[in-house]
Amino acid sequence: MKLPPDYVAGFVDGEGSFSLTIAKHKEKKSGLDPRLTFAIELRDDDLEILLALQETFECGRIYHLSYERYGWFPHVILKVSSIDELCTKIIPFFRKHVLRAKKRKSFELFCRAAEIFVSKKHLVKEGIDQLYLIQSQMNKYSKKGGIPSFRQGAGKPRARRGENSPK
Amino acid sequence: MKLPPDYVAGFVDGEGSFSLTIAKHKEKKSGLDPRLTFAIELRDDDLEILLALQETFECGRIYHLSYERYGWFPHVILKVSSIDELCTKIIPFFRKHVLRAKKRKSFELFCRAAEIFVSKKHLVKEGIDQLYLIQSQMNKYSKKGGIPSFRQGAGKPRARRGENSPK
Repeated sequence: MKLPPDYVAGFVDGEGSFSLTIAKHKEKKSGLDPRLTFAIELRDDDLEILLALQETFECGRIYHLSYERYGWFPHVILKVSSIDELCTKIIPFFRKHVLRAKKRKSFELFCRAAEIFVSKKHLVKEGIDQLYLIQSQMNKYSKKGGIPSFRQGAGKPRARRGENSPK
Repeated sequence: MKLPPDYVAGFVDGEGSFSLTIAKHKEKKSGLDPRLTFAIELRDDDLEILLALQETFECGRIYHLSYERYGWFPHVILKVSSIDELCTKIIPFFRKHVLRAKKRKSFELFCRAAEIFVSKKHLVKEGIDQLYLIQSQMNKYSKKGGIPSFRQGAGKPRARRGENSPK
């Protein structure tokens, strides 16, 4: 079942994530493996809505995360990492049906990073440097907030006051 | 700025909560103080969207939660607890613009509880017993999931396997 597009925008503003990771990779010429991922992770008893989101986006794969070893509730995650699917499905979707919370800023940076991938510059140093810059800006809007480490994500305990406070 | 209603339904499916609490209260005839609350709690750098939600619902109050003593990121919360506002604004809103994730089930139970409040039965034992029953059903859809305590909410560590497992 396809979902109303505005509903999807609202849901993703709450539960979606736009991320850029740059991992080391021995077999890549640059030694680095930058990746863009759009994802929605929910508890596994909300699988039904994730299937409907997948149908609405017409892309993405769903993975089951048992989290057994962490002792957490099992989750399901819808992931889109293919640059082609991101550029033809996900980005156009949110250009048309806009995000309205602070996630909109992550999305705009994500789009700038996608342009670098499309131009293949993510394979060379110049492009990777640009991606690092974008990544640092995206971190400002992430859960950890890009602000001093003593202010962490919602509900997560930080170091005790004083330990990591700015001097 | 008012938000598109479907957007609001999507956002609330991710971030909203419908809750029923029954606290002890010496000055109440029944000795108990049942309350219904609709709330949306976000990090304080998302205040703008919370103000827009408040304007869209045409009700609710926003509170700032410093969480200083817990060492968490400061939050803002939009709360609607008045039974009049719940029945004339919030419930009709989500009857018209439906929730689609598992939160829909909490909402349906919330509506049944609201009927008990409207009929004033929440002031007497019979009604409070009904509210306890509804509350136990709502807990099934809450973060803790109403299942054995070793399976807790997303991302929260549970007791180590074995410690609290059912016999």
